[in-house]
Amino acid sequence: MAAVNPPRGMRDFLPAEKARREQVLAVIRERYRSHGFDEIETPVVEDYDRLHAGMGGDNEKLAFNVMKRGLEAEAIRAAADDPAALSDLGLRFDLTVPLARFYASHRGELPGVFRAIQIAPVWRAERPQKGRYRQFVQCDIDIIGDASARAEAELITATLDTLDALGLEGASVRINDRRALDAMLDVFGFAAEERPGVLITIDKLDKIGPTGVVAELRERGVTASAVDAFATFLDRAAADVPVFGEDQIRAGLPAGVGDEIVAHLVGIGEAVQAARPGADVPLVFDPFLVRGMGYYTGTIFELAHPSVSYSLGGGGRYDGMIGRFLGQEVPAVGFSIGFERIVDLVQQATDAGTSAVVLVHDRDVPVAELVALKSALVRDGRRVRLEQRTKNLKALLERATADGYTAFATVSAGAALEDLELKPLG
Amino acid sequence: MAAVNPPRGMRDFLPAEKARREQVLAVIRERYRSHGFDEIETPVVEDYDRLHAGMGGDNEKLAFNVMKRGLEAEAIRAAADDPAALSDLGLRFDLTVPLARFYASHRGELPGVFRAIQIAPVWRAERPQKGRYRQFVQCDIDIIGDASARAEAELITATLDTLDALGLEGASVRINDRRALDAMLDVFGFAAEERPGVLITIDKLDKIGPTGVVAELRERGVTASAVDAFATFLDRAAADVPVFGEDQIRAGLPAGVGDEIVAHLVGIGEAVQAARPGADVPLVFDPFLVRGMGYYTGTIFELAHPSVSYSLGGGGRYDGMIGRFLGQEVPAVGFSIGFERIVDLVQQATDAGTSAVVLVHDRDVPVAELVALKSALVRDGRRVRLEQRTKNLKALLERATADGYTAFATVSAGAALEDLELKPLG
Repeated sequence: MAAVNPPRGMRDFLPAEKARREQVLAVIRERYRSHGFDEIETPVVEDYDRLHAGMGGDNEKLAFNVMKRGLEAEAIRAAADDPAALSDLGLRFDLTVPLARFYASHRGELPGVFRAIQIAPVWRAERPQKGRYRQFVQCDIDIIGDASARAEAELITATLDTLDALGLEGASVRINDRRALDAMLDVFGFAAEERPGVLITIDKLDKIGPTGVVAELRERGVTASAVDAFATFLDRAAADVPVFGEDQIRAGLPAGVGDEIVAHLVGIGEAVQAARPGADVPLVFDPFLVRGMGYYTGTIFELAHPSVSYSLGGGGRYDGMIGRFLGQEVPAVGFSIGFERIVDLVQQATDAGTSAVVLVHDRDVPVAELVALKSALVRDGRRVRLEQRTKNLKALLERATADGYTAFATVSAGAALEDLELKPLG
Repeated sequence: MAAVNPPRGMRDFLPAEKARREQVLAVIRERYRSHGFDEIETPVVEDYDRLHAGMGGDNEKLAFNVMKRGLEAEAIRAAADDPAALSDLGLRFDLTVPLARFYASHRGELPGVFRAIQIAPVWRAERPQKGRYRQFVQCDIDIIGDASARAEAELITATLDTLDALGLEGASVRINDRRALDAMLDVFGFAAEERPGVLITIDKLDKIGPTGVVAELRERGVTASAVDAFATFLDRAAADVPVFGEDQIRAGLPAGVGDEIVAHLVGIGEAVQAARPGADVPLVFDPFLVRGMGYYTGTIFELAHPSVSYSLGGGGRYDGMIGRFLGQEVPAVGFSIGFERIVDLVQQATDAGTSAVVLVHDRDVPVAELVALKSALVRDGRRVRLEQRTKNLKALLERATADGYTAFATVSAGAALEDLELKPLG
């Protein structure tokens, strides 16, 4: 028989991996809740029109769409040139569009400043490749209704605290502001219509380096004097700015970037510093941080950890978006951690101290005796698996050890609970 | 602006309801794990052909199907009379088809007797109505690879223990065997081809009563002498059989039903009794229990609770099905609890003892002070929400109380942690 696999680009989780994922999620959930965030849930599908309202950037094209039910042949033929007419729903490709829809549906039932946790899978019909899946879990926290630096500071503090709780101490956050980027490009003399393309190139700084960025900007044929000014600035600013304060931010920006933007960034830095006394301030101002999504309107940030070269998450302010379905602007800022990346970094969590026992029994032990022994041990606070003895007892016990069982006992007919001799496994 | 709602027949969960659902799920998960079951996860979609392989009964027709990506106009026109050709995936309508696929994919990595937990949403495009949703959570436990009564006894014991842990003591399980039903209909003289229809009618016993059932059987025009024999038996057997043992089972069945079936049922009863010493045996033999799904091959059961008239779950043996994708028969039996029904019965769980504090602050308190106070309290083991003081402080505190917060403090500029005076809420 042919191999039977989960759908292309998607994964099953076997018991050990599922348990590990749930343990990591439990820590994330608990930490976020401690910081005053509340978990919500939305359906995995949203109405087709909402998913395709231009809020998801390139991800909209990657949506899995759900067919209308009961379509007649005539309707299908009529939709041949407009396949969108065949769908009424789609699987969400992120958690931000559903959050905007949720907020519009329930605003009256939510606090004035609403701190949301969403921990849930999303789907994207990407070309499957190593480490990239068509169903994966996102962990987002968002603060809706707070335009002040308090919001960013709460998000960053909660995120760093969560990383600490997962044993991933030493994480840091690179931060910038989209308005600062805009002002910077303006100062250098890039025309407004050149800036989106220029940002796409600057976003590659990590990959292609300053020389590569300047070369690509020249190829773009954008205003040459602006590229020159940018190249000079880039040369001067090449080093990271490890400390976070007004002077550093000023030094990292060309003259002419607005005070309000700088004050907002300084406010975030001071608050995060105050919230983590004794620790090095885990913020780095990065005037070249861009982040891809078009919907960011202010602060943007990315999460880094010394053990890996790639980002573990990120986020930013998107004040225009949450209110889209509401018909009214609402300030909003979110931080998403890349769960699939983080779960691989977290060391195997130890089991929560429950002793887990395998009862190995012979075929002739009556079922009622087995189930009674098992239940007595369960009542005693243990996790219990029944296994009929096989010729290869060693293999049986090795598997149980791999599954987290810590002791075993053999059961003969007529054995009472007090006869059981628990022997350690592994 | 028009009302913005989740997709038709689906629900959002706001913080209080989401927290309640997660608390109930955590209890279920923990109890099932104690009983030696291990949680797995599969993607929410399966390949279209697997979902529509005839294993899902009527639910197959209710599947939400996912459109193929990148369909050309020509392909759409060609599929006008066969819409199935437009889909390559579908949202799962139950957890049993995915489990069969999972087992076929991973058999070599699983224990010889595999005890699975699946706690996950399923989707059915049913006509929305009160209490019936198009996305809902199922909680299934299944034992694959054990043909003995040990499997049923473990499932029933784990389920009753879980209901107890949720504060739903007093649950009971009605039990029967599909083979006993078959043998009974054979003894009465129903022809083989009449039996599926006869079972559909018997399944209505709870709703239309013995008189209704006999009348409907006569209308069906099935063998009249068989209906007479059945009517006499039904009359005699009308009372429930509250005790569970060989004599009771024998008394509940017409002569001629195989010893092996009776022995299997007795074995289950003895084991459940042994596992719950001191408690009344929570099993009722019900020779007229049918359960709808066509795939059951042996024991079937339903979960009842004195507080409600409807079933809270059920399951049975389906030895032919798990091996479908494997090309080989594997014994299997499962018990599914109706999470959406149970979550409504469980009393509001008390929060896990964490003290949850609202810090109410004036506009002029610096952000860094606020976030530092919050973080200090979080480090102290508390859950903390920041709220800017509004004119209606009472409403603000009432909302916090509803969200599970237990204390509040007001914060002025320059306040230190030791200045905070925590006052109880609610």
